[in-house]
Amino acid sequence: MDQPNRKALEHYLLEHIPITAALGIKVSFVSSEKIVLSAPFDKNINHKQTVFGGSLHAVATLACWGWLHLNLKERVQIVIAHSEVDYLSPVNTDFEAECHRPDAIEWERFMTIFRRKGKARLTLKAKVVQDGRLCVDYTGTFVALKYSE
Amino acid sequence: MDQPNRKALEHYLLEHIPITAALGIKVSFVSSEKIVLSAPFDKNINHKQTVFGGSLHAVATLACWGWLHLNLKERVQIVIAHSEVDYLSPVNTDFEAECHRPDAIEWERFMTIFRRKGKARLTLKAKVVQDGRLCVDYTGTFVALKYSE
Repeated sequence: MDQPNRKALEHYLLEHIPITAALGIKVSFVSSEKIVLSAPFDKNINHKQTVFGGSLHAVATLACWGWLHLNLKERVQIVIAHSEVDYLSPVNTDFEAECHRPDAIEWERFMTIFRRKGKARLTLKAKVVQDGRLCVDYTGTFVALKYSE
Repeated sequence: MDQPNRKALEHYLLEHIPITAALGIKVSFVSSEKIVLSAPFDKNINHKQTVFGGSLHAVATLACWGWLHLNLKERVQIVIAHSEVDYLSPVNTDFEAECHRPDAIEWERFMTIFRRKGKARLTLKAKVVQDGRLCVDYTGTFVALKYSE
């Protein structure tokens, strides 16, 4: 995955999920190992002059969704089933949410079930770090469903 | 709490958390027993023609935050510490997130600690229901901090 994928994903998000434009989401980096989405402070500010928790959650969700979307080559629907967030420290700048490839055993387990049943569940993590401090620790569980032809 | 509170809260959200305008959030109902926030389908649609999970989470978060904001009479800062969401069924219409007053024992415990220490933690729940079906089951843990004068 490379630059065309980065731009294609950004375009896909803006076209299909209009709230991403209001959040100011950009796809900063994609590779098979990780994805980074960014968003500006000013569009996501709250009454405490920090980033609204809902915005942090939304960008983290889309980082995980985006990683899975780019790494599943087959025609597939990806649905979020569960999310958990620990808000550990406030964010008060432009920010990035980064999702890394899950470990090899977990990915192989997921792909084996997905190929066999056309449906499988994968848990991904995303983090928002500011000045070296972990601010947002996000976990999302996604269900991938193969489209029936 | 009544109509003036409803309008005041809606104005407060729009003024201080600009993303609420993009989400199209309205405060539909407030009482000491519950709060209902609503948002339109079209602003929150995703690539599957259902409501984006990040929007569902954001409106549920603000329902819980709003209930606590209106029920704490003292000058207080409310910070989200943790959230969990089960996405049980897709939402494909305009939607409402409803947060109810926690049970009396839990509220009394929270207020006792808050008065004693100037800081306390409360877990609130919000739900999104469509056609009688529970679609989103949200739990948020908030920390209330008394402002030092």
